[in-house]
Amino acid sequence: MKKENPIFTPPELVADWQALKRTFIMPENDSGKAKLVKYMEQILFGLHDFLKAHVGITEEISLKDLSKNFMDTRISKNPQKKLADVITDLIVDIAPHAVNVASPYFIGHMTSAIPFFMVHLKTIAAALNQNVVKVETSKVVSVLEKQVLAKIHRLIYNKSEDFYNEHVQDTQTMLGGFTEDGTIANLTALWVARNVLLAPKDEFLGIEKEGIHAAYKAYGIERCVILLSKLGHYSLKKACGILGIGNQNVITIDMGNLKNIIKEIKLDKKTAIMAVVGIAGTTETGTVDPLYKIGEICHENNIHFHVDAAWGGPTLLSEKYRHLLKGIELSDSVTIDGHKQFYMPMTCGMVYFNSPHVLDNIVYHSNYVNRPGSVDLGMKSLAGSREANSLILDSALKIMGSGGYALLIDHGIETAIKFAEEIKKRKNFELITAPQLNILTYRVFPHSLKLEPPSKELNQKLNDINRTVQRLQREAGKSFVSRTTLNDIVVLRVVIMNPMTNINILNEILDEQEEIYERNKDCDCDPQ
Amino acid sequence: MKKENPIFTPPELVADWQALKRTFIMPENDSGKAKLVKYMEQILFGLHDFLKAHVGITEEISLKDLSKNFMDTRISKNPQKKLADVITDLIVDIAPHAVNVASPYFIGHMTSAIPFFMVHLKTIAAALNQNVVKVETSKVVSVLEKQVLAKIHRLIYNKSEDFYNEHVQDTQTMLGGFTEDGTIANLTALWVARNVLLAPKDEFLGIEKEGIHAAYKAYGIERCVILLSKLGHYSLKKACGILGIGNQNVITIDMGNLKNIIKEIKLDKKTAIMAVVGIAGTTETGTVDPLYKIGEICHENNIHFHVDAAWGGPTLLSEKYRHLLKGIELSDSVTIDGHKQFYMPMTCGMVYFNSPHVLDNIVYHSNYVNRPGSVDLGMKSLAGSREANSLILDSALKIMGSGGYALLIDHGIETAIKFAEEIKKRKNFELITAPQLNILTYRVFPHSLKLEPPSKELNQKLNDINRTVQRLQREAGKSFVSRTTLNDIVVLRVVIMNPMTNINILNEILDEQEEIYERNKDCDCDPQ
Repeated sequence: MKKENPIFTPPELVADWQALKRTFIMPENDSGKAKLVKYMEQILFGLHDFLKAHVGITEEISLKDLSKNFMDTRISKNPQKKLADVITDLIVDIAPHAVNVASPYFIGHMTSAIPFFMVHLKTIAAALNQNVVKVETSKVVSVLEKQVLAKIHRLIYNKSEDFYNEHVQDTQTMLGGFTEDGTIANLTALWVARNVLLAPKDEFLGIEKEGIHAAYKAYGIERCVILLSKLGHYSLKKACGILGIGNQNVITIDMGNLKNIIKEIKLDKKTAIMAVVGIAGTTETGTVDPLYKIGEICHENNIHFHVDAAWGGPTLLSEKYRHLLKGIELSDSVTIDGHKQFYMPMTCGMVYFNSPHVLDNIVYHSNYVNRPGSVDLGMKSLAGSREANSLILDSALKIMGSGGYALLIDHGIETAIKFAEEIKKRKNFELITAPQLNILTYRVFPHSLKLEPPSKELNQKLNDINRTVQRLQREAGKSFVSRTTLNDIVVLRVVIMNPMTNINILNEILDEQEEIYERNKDCDCDPQ
Repeated sequence: MKKENPIFTPPELVADWQALKRTFIMPENDSGKAKLVKYMEQILFGLHDFLKAHVGITEEISLKDLSKNFMDTRISKNPQKKLADVITDLIVDIAPHAVNVASPYFIGHMTSAIPFFMVHLKTIAAALNQNVVKVETSKVVSVLEKQVLAKIHRLIYNKSEDFYNEHVQDTQTMLGGFTEDGTIANLTALWVARNVLLAPKDEFLGIEKEGIHAAYKAYGIERCVILLSKLGHYSLKKACGILGIGNQNVITIDMGNLKNIIKEIKLDKKTAIMAVVGIAGTTETGTVDPLYKIGEICHENNIHFHVDAAWGGPTLLSEKYRHLLKGIELSDSVTIDGHKQFYMPMTCGMVYFNSPHVLDNIVYHSNYVNRPGSVDLGMKSLAGSREANSLILDSALKIMGSGGYALLIDHGIETAIKFAEEIKKRKNFELITAPQLNILTYRVFPHSLKLEPPSKELNQKLNDINRTVQRLQREAGKSFVSRTTLNDIVVLRVVIMNPMTNINILNEILDEQEEIYERNKDCDCDPQ
């Protein structure tokens, strides 16, 4: 890696008004145009070819060493680089030290290769540079966004033709919204749930206006809680911290006991249940909660039922596997991420609501935009300025069809099942959680240790082995699985979403893990 | 506009596994590559040429008529379109009905033309598709992000060389963070302020854990308030609604009275002041609060001082005008938007903190990422998954230099001053707020009415005139100024950030407004 010297300015680079203005105008002559297209070619193929030739997952260099090249905190007065050099530097210096998430050997996180056309679609959104907070900076894109939201709402809730005809372009109602990511989608859903629970009544103007302290007084309570599935994402705790509920009031439960737990909490008149959150594809194991059952219980008890389907939502596009999410249609709100199994570029979250009116509980107006009665989508949204992610999702749905997405979903689930079988067959491994969707966890469990009786010490030993194997494999740079901890067991976690990841590659990854274990079993490695 | 028929599938388009897999691999042959580059050429120039030939700001068609073409809510099972057709449709059908925010005649909002290389930079970020929530999906980009944050922190707070050497790559501290937009940056700042104010003490575990109700009890208060400058952005009210403080506890004040107001509130032992928020460039008029004075008062009173510099922040890059923001270095936190005066594509917000430790108040960990001690940036961030906006900002700073940005800032401010003089010279206009930065407001005030004594009726009449003129000009599609209401006066609002917007264009816009007024003054137009 070249050492940067940011204060050096090539003599020809001086901030100049005429040159600067030209960067705001598209060149009209052929050579100017050709240059800009050439840069795009570099970005599309130079990047790809370089990564392919030189890098597996990432080049082996520690973060600490890397960071030594990123110490200078001055902004140069004069330009330091031309676009061409910036692009070259990104390809040669940055990309090899980034993470090649597109590799079929990168199976550790919910980030993967994306179809190449997604890059084109993102480029279009950037070139149009619409701001969807208001119609005056987006016009048709606001209308298109409403349509896309209705399409996904229909996928989830499947209401009548009349319902969608009425609401798809109704400026008074909203079926959902785009957010930066799943965390903000979850936060939005719980924000709505909080405001519905503690709505205006009598003299009380509602929690949004008066705050929690006044709200609890008006409702005669001292605490709100959320009941969350055991492997729920940490963003739900964060959301409750932000919303002023207190994150210790997120109670993680076994959903099998939901009915009894609700009954018990209801005995305490000072505590209100703000929401029950079920997960459709937990981050760590891909588990799906019994959504139908939860939905029924929430209906009976009149409790907001939120489904975090950030991961699993697109499973609804697969005719073969959509039954795994049965009951999602009983929910009051749903989170789905576009940058996960819709294969969109970073980032795109979405939140959907069963009722088209419920977002009224978080409406905000102002004088210069979002005036009452306008079509401005920013009125009922946590964020203000937003990019036109709906353009990307809409185009992707047209290019892929639900059938195309279904092929990806089916491949992920079926490859995960095959992989689980392979793990069970191998003598040096143990499957920890079988895949319900396309995520599974397992660990290296050397044959020789399987004869030992289970003990805390043995588990500790296995934990160290798995930490070491995961780290050394990551550092070797060819493959990447992630690790997490389930009930004190350190596990290797695999997410299968890349269509190029097949059972042969997965076997190679297991082989490498076995080799790493064998090579290091007698060394006193630092497991971190 | 072609009427869509989404259920029609061209016979050749069927979701097919082999074809689908190919979209995940870059073509290796020249013709395949040429095709993808051709699409980029279409996106860069086809879009531009089409807009230039056919469209001013936007084509004249009402949103209601437009929305009729966006009614179908079914997702087609088979692919409906190829990428080439999607791109063509976007250029021919969508773009003309979007808003050409790049036009130098589009001076109504904080959205503008961006340098063409920003589109390339966004494309690179999409092609790399890093997720900055964690090192395992971003590696060098996390390190680069820390460096860019330090660069902007230094621009604001200008601490010692030692300070930056210590913190730029310190994995224990953070100088700020990237967010989706200014709203979420403001929310993050106030979230931190809330948690600092109501921190753990004695038995109390802190507001984030226990919630507001318990926090107020522990601290013996019944209310938190925020003191906000009169023209503060509505996002600050929204933030307090979300945080559980209650948005009616955002008290808008004249900052000249800050000292007395604080004194008065302090008499009420049941009320705590959570933060004072000053604005560096209000959304509606571009006004800058007396930051230095506010900073001093906040220090004396030990109150969190937040500056919303979403708009005005980059003024710091101009040696000529950075003095306008004097006092920002006394703040505890600052919001700056990248998609505003850093000219980045939608969207990029940022929040900075004076103290490198204060983000510890919102830290979240989990088992699979953000483990204590890791470099994962997602530990202290409202959102989880995030795109690599730092790559874009870092590259832009290198290509532009602070000097390049300064030219843009200076042009905006100086053109606004010239424009204000022109408005004052014209007999049918009235300047309402002179520009402090590059924003001003004015209204059509026909000479003939200037003789009438001021009255509510006259103001009403002028309001109707200005509503009508703004609407008709917008609908004519050549120019766009926005409108807002200041003290019951409907005003036209102008934001000058496009380097191609000059005084001649501004004069044309005034001419058109006069013409529209003259043409319609006797008609009984609906001002809406």
